[in-house]
Amino acid sequence: MYKAKAYSAASATSPLASSTIARRDPTETDVQIEILFCGICHSDLHQVRNEWSGVMPTVYPCVPGHEIVGRVAKVGASVTKFKPGDLAAVGCMVDSDHTCPECQAGLEQFCPNLTLTYNFPDKHLGCVTYGGYSDSVVVDERFVLRVPSNLDLAGTAPLLCAGITTYSPMRHWGVTKGKKVGIVGLGGLGHMGVKFAHALGAHVVAFTTSPGKKEDALRLGADEVVISRNADEMAKHAGSFDFILDAVSASHDINAYINLLRRDGNITLVGAPEKPMPLAAFGLIMGRRSLSGSPIGGIPETQEMLDFCGRHNITSDVEVIPIQKVNEAYERLLKSDVKYRFSIDMASLKSE
Amino acid sequence: MYKAKAYSAASATSPLASSTIARRDPTETDVQIEILFCGICHSDLHQVRNEWSGVMPTVYPCVPGHEIVGRVAKVGASVTKFKPGDLAAVGCMVDSDHTCPECQAGLEQFCPNLTLTYNFPDKHLGCVTYGGYSDSVVVDERFVLRVPSNLDLAGTAPLLCAGITTYSPMRHWGVTKGKKVGIVGLGGLGHMGVKFAHALGAHVVAFTTSPGKKEDALRLGADEVVISRNADEMAKHAGSFDFILDAVSASHDINAYINLLRRDGNITLVGAPEKPMPLAAFGLIMGRRSLSGSPIGGIPETQEMLDFCGRHNITSDVEVIPIQKVNEAYERLLKSDVKYRFSIDMASLKSE
Repeated sequence: MYKAKAYSAASATSPLASSTIARRDPTETDVQIEILFCGICHSDLHQVRNEWSGVMPTVYPCVPGHEIVGRVAKVGASVTKFKPGDLAAVGCMVDSDHTCPECQAGLEQFCPNLTLTYNFPDKHLGCVTYGGYSDSVVVDERFVLRVPSNLDLAGTAPLLCAGITTYSPMRHWGVTKGKKVGIVGLGGLGHMGVKFAHALGAHVVAFTTSPGKKEDALRLGADEVVISRNADEMAKHAGSFDFILDAVSASHDINAYINLLRRDGNITLVGAPEKPMPLAAFGLIMGRRSLSGSPIGGIPETQEMLDFCGRHNITSDVEVIPIQKVNEAYERLLKSDVKYRFSIDMASLKSE
Repeated sequence: MYKAKAYSAASATSPLASSTIARRDPTETDVQIEILFCGICHSDLHQVRNEWSGVMPTVYPCVPGHEIVGRVAKVGASVTKFKPGDLAAVGCMVDSDHTCPECQAGLEQFCPNLTLTYNFPDKHLGCVTYGGYSDSVVVDERFVLRVPSNLDLAGTAPLLCAGITTYSPMRHWGVTKGKKVGIVGLGGLGHMGVKFAHALGAHVVAFTTSPGKKEDALRLGADEVVISRNADEMAKHAGSFDFILDAVSASHDINAYINLLRRDGNITLVGAPEKPMPLAAFGLIMGRRSLSGSPIGGIPETQEMLDFCGRHNITSDVEVIPIQKVNEAYERLLKSDVKYRFSIDMASLKSE
């Protein structure tokens, strides 16, 4: 074991603060990574504040962070994919059982014995896993991703959650050139959705409640922007979409979007509103439309996404902050006051 | 034009009563059918009582009926598929534009210029279309189906709506041998769902709120029956279904069924509850599951379904009634007091 610096929360009501945590020495198959940047995901805030106590109660101290980019510091004896000095990335998962049908299919995100990057039982040290708000992390090489060398590293970090969460359903539901694709909500997830749909060759329509985001949506790659509160604008697109990515976690009317789908069209939810959403069956029945959900992607698809980003030079639009500003960033996150993701420059942790 | 006997409603509050309607003489492409049996669909009752006034207001007199089986009486000069004396069937549609992409794909049910079998503008006579509660009907041969000669005709009639409505989504979502399939609700639609899923080779689980229907479900082809109000029984099937057909129109908790789907599983609604259903996004997201809807099928698939029924000797379980009992049957329908579909013996109309 060795000691690593980290920012952790001591309770649901404590701010994140500088602390020291134990990391395991790399085993034969492990990669030790010096963390350079870690994105801030809304899940971090939910977990730190124990807002998922019903399904995933928080164990304190809690070190969040699952959008990790860094440089390989050490590798175990049998590691083949990485060597010291390589760029490397880690997302929401750090282990799985490797034997179930899901793992065999490269869909580790559905493995029943998945280990998430933070707040999950750590089979090595007996405590819970600690995430990326730290200067170092040790991860089995099977869960470490390669990072294309041309990408800005601060903007690469959010690809590991916001990126794969939006890329995966587009690939699953066949977004390609010639398709008409809608992206609902222009936040951390939605702005990545616009970039990916555009790069995949689709005709991209961004839906937002904020007229002020129109120019930004066009800059990100949208072909059209619809102010979703304008019923006339919405009506013009009735029955025309092949696919809609709904990245809004606040309560909103999904039926309005279902009616914009063409026959056999799909709308996928990647944001999960807290309260159940009223769903009118008729809109689904009439066009044989479907409504689905999607979490992150598996490891092979996450690598595919990063490689795709390398080829298309796609990163997240980020505001880089020192870790000392993380509590302030959480408050701003609650007000959607960030374009479009915070990325923590982990060099700032050295001074702690 | 010629006169046909029919049962029609004069207003939303009138009972169905004997009347005379005009039918067109067959055009070159038409088939004139002597109706032998017509199934009673819940849609008939909704339309007769103007319960869909918001989307499809009823024009009176209204002659419902879109589960029609009969014998060809006459054919137009260019009709090639039928000759007098042939068995023939008509479902929910009697015309479409034949030129749109949906029609070209054999998915006439999605044609924007579809003509439904009753209460739709009749381009020939200028009034509305009149359905199958009649001794005769004239339909373009492209919307007339062939009936396998081995099938019981009374039980064949409901295949034209209840049958295709349950068959189509199972084919669309890939129900085959080795799949685990759930059927929710054992009514007119659900009992057909059980028969089809069984004949397609799936492991079939019927969900019902009525313990009294258990034996019947097994007789219809279910491998297992789950009483859906029993949470323990439900929990045993968590995450295990490839496909679930939800044939319940009454309000019910769809989230409980979504949680029974395995990764990438689909639940399709063919019943449309009147009120919006509360939907929890999390259940869809966690397993990349999907929820969809499905109406009837297109003409090629309806023929495929009838041919499939011929090969597997599948018909609907019906209670045959004379047309004089139709108003009583409607009252019983409201109480789900029928196993599982009423089929009107149209010979009874001769005495009117």
